Amino acid sequence: MALKKKPVTGMKDILPAEMQIRDYVTNQIKETYQSFGFSQIETPCVEHIENLTSKQGGDNEKLIFKILKRGEKLNLETAQSEADLVDGGLRYDLTLPLSRYYANNAASLPSPFKALQMGSVWRADRPQKGRFRQFVQCDIDILGDATPMAEIELILATTTALGKICRGETFFVRINDRNILKAMALYAGFPEEFTEQVFITLDKLDKIGMEGVQTELRENGFSEDSIERYSQLLSGIADGSDGVRRLGETLRGVLPDGVAENLAYIMDTVQEAMADDTHCRLVFDPNLVRGMGYYTGTIFEVAVEGLGYSVAGGGRYDKMIGKFTGMDTPACGFSIGFERIVGMLMDAGFTVPGSETKQAYLYEKGLSQEALAAVLKEAMEARKGGARILVAQMNKNKKFQKEQLTKEGYTEFKEFYREALKK
Amino acid sequence: MALKKKPVTGMKDILPAEMQIRDYVTNQIKETYQSFGFSQIETPCVEHIENLTSKQGGDNEKLIFKILKRGEKLNLETAQSEADLVDGGLRYDLTLPLSRYYANNAASLPSPFKALQMGSVWRADRPQKGRFRQFVQCDIDILGDATPMAEIELILATTTALGKICRGETFFVRINDRNILKAMALYAGFPEEFTEQVFITLDKLDKIGMEGVQTELRENGFSEDSIERYSQLLSGIADGSDGVRRLGETLRGVLPDGVAENLAYIMDTVQEAMADDTHCRLVFDPNLVRGMGYYTGTIFEVAVEGLGYSVAGGGRYDKMIGKFTGMDTPACGFSIGFERIVGMLMDAGFTVPGSETKQAYLYEKGLSQEALAAVLKEAMEARKGGARILVAQMNKNKKFQKEQLTKEGYTEFKEFYREALKK
Repeated sequence: MALKKKPVTGMKDILPAEMQIRDYVTNQIKETYQSFGFSQIETPCVEHIENLTSKQGGDNEKLIFKILKRGEKLNLETAQSEADLVDGGLRYDLTLPLSRYYANNAASLPSPFKALQMGSVWRADRPQKGRFRQFVQCDIDILGDATPMAEIELILATTTALGKICRGETFFVRINDRNILKAMALYAGFPEEFTEQVFITLDKLDKIGMEGVQTELRENGFSEDSIERYSQLLSGIADGSDGVRRLGETLRGVLPDGVAENLAYIMDTVQEAMADDTHCRLVFDPNLVRGMGYYTGTIFEVAVEGLGYSVAGGGRYDKMIGKFTGMDTPACGFSIGFERIVGMLMDAGFTVPGSETKQAYLYEKGLSQEALAAVLKEAMEARKGGARILVAQMNKNKKFQKEQLTKEGYTEFKEFYREALKK
Repeated sequence: MALKKKPVTGMKDILPAEMQIRDYVTNQIKETYQSFGFSQIETPCVEHIENLTSKQGGDNEKLIFKILKRGEKLNLETAQSEADLVDGGLRYDLTLPLSRYYANNAASLPSPFKALQMGSVWRADRPQKGRFRQFVQCDIDILGDATPMAEIELILATTTALGKICRGETFFVRINDRNILKAMALYAGFPEEFTEQVFITLDKLDKIGMEGVQTELRENGFSEDSIERYSQLLSGIADGSDGVRRLGETLRGVLPDGVAENLAYIMDTVQEAMADDTHCRLVFDPNLVRGMGYYTGTIFEVAVEGLGYSVAGGGRYDKMIGKFTGMDTPACGFSIGFERIVGMLMDAGFTVPGSETKQAYLYEKGLSQEALAAVLKEAMEARKGGARILVAQMNKNKKFQKEQLTKEGYTEFKEFYREALKK
């Protein structure tokens, strides 16, 4: 029987041209983050099924690729449910494994710990254009720092990395705080036990607009009064740090002390620390929700001007590490949507700058062993100096062969013939 | 319930110090291989279960991490066996996925295609020291080249990469051909249908010695005469290319024409092309078997002098791609044992050369927002020039903090105090 040629559903083979761009983006991100003092780490791609299904991952927990138990541990006859069959799964993000990692290795790590992770994650999502079941995430996280410096450094580092890769683009960083979201809902009169439901609706604002949000809230049975009050509150908010401070005044009594000031502090400091040539605008967005249930404070998202989707996002999750250790550890992270960045560059016909010159040494068929060894020796010497040299047999249709090689980026050709070398 | 802190059995968390070495080795290998004209590609980590269990992988097929079907496709009640439950698995090597990849993408790839892959593979082996269930392989393969140039370039590239990483070490490349192995067995009088069994025993030579091999062959019922004749043949073989040629003469009639000459050609050309300062010795080893069933011709293995294990291995597998396409494509590959190389460097206390200077900016607690922004702005400017700068709050025990940072590689410190900045 012939074997299957296509990759498994929703995953893809990466061709050399895309790989070059991926490699370039990886290096730009890594270099930038290392210049901010982040240390690269790795966790296994396989994670305990108990950890993956511990309600930290929200909807992603429905999309886990689960791994069958092996050997004696697998008992098909006594298995009652899926849970009896599996003991692991492929990670659906890098945040949950990082929390486990920190819990496991804190004694060997500096505090605060600035972690950099670049790795594949897997989600059995419905396959669709540009969305894959295996994709790369690039995360930075600061663990053990409760001060706003964590948010400030994360935003500076991420926007610097994005700015390097997407030169000339303008970025919008939208920022909010989960506590402000909640206080606004309480201020409007939504019942405390239903605030999460309000956020789920609000999170659809990009797709359904404010009218759609109001309609859905109405359909969900919330009072006209609360919906009206919420809309009014929203409409009066300015998007700078002053807007945050004023909103803090308005929400006094329902918003914990210091939250608004903290957010304003982050915004002011980031703006002041940014180089003047940074094409980046930081705005307070009281509508920003972000899906993951584990966020406990600041949340942020980055979009490119003129594109309808975000390219990075993150926030503070002060309660997750405590699930492993029994003791809460402040934590804050920012994740770059690597595949979207790569897709943007591919769509724009981006070529990786400053690659080494690629040379092809073409030798005639039937070259003597001694002559071929001499060609190889010459190539070996040149490679030592950093040259990229392909040694290949000359085809009958040399012109076509050179055209093909030119497409692959070979710009210099050297030819070796039987006669020439016999002399 | 507290979550699990340890990684899953047999897989490991990678700490920053090891990660630095891994990154260094990765870059050295990648750079070297690119200088030989190899193009980096990637395949998904998940592969069709049909492909993984198609008898290409030998014993590795017993060690597959299998992935449970999802949604409607999973039917626990009607499932009779494991095979009904799974539709994918984690790849156990990079060669099988590469063959699928080539079959799927040949039209978009140059011919011959020189592929470079670096990626994790998974095997549910019994956990033991230094051996993990997730580990990285670094493979180069040349697809579509039936000439000995494939072997020659693979050996030159791999030994160049190893020589760069393990400076000062001497490498032994042992080389053989599956056809020579078989011809020797036939020459000695072993029945043709049992030659594979002879190789399985011979493969244990390193562990059990020649006497052990003879004993096992005897126990397996092979004739004393064949065993004696085989041992005699072996004992008279010289390890240079001349030895190969002479053996070719001896085996005339049982060895296909051209095999010995081809191997001798590879050996001569590699030796002549190698730079004079290469600490590398290429020897013909008629005992070299290599476990994988898919090899069809040349096989090779690299060991470091003084170490009891190989650090790289490979060979020609001209029949695998045909399993996907129905048409055989010549193929030859070489795989570096990445984890062993990293382990060697870690054991030797290796430090990554030439990393950028790491500076720490320590600021006093209670610094004003304006002053902190100024510190950050200074750091941002310095980072632009490539500096690596950690900005951190000064601890009460500053001396201890600096000691810790020094251990992490920070060599320069700059301190920012409330007073100094107020001036």
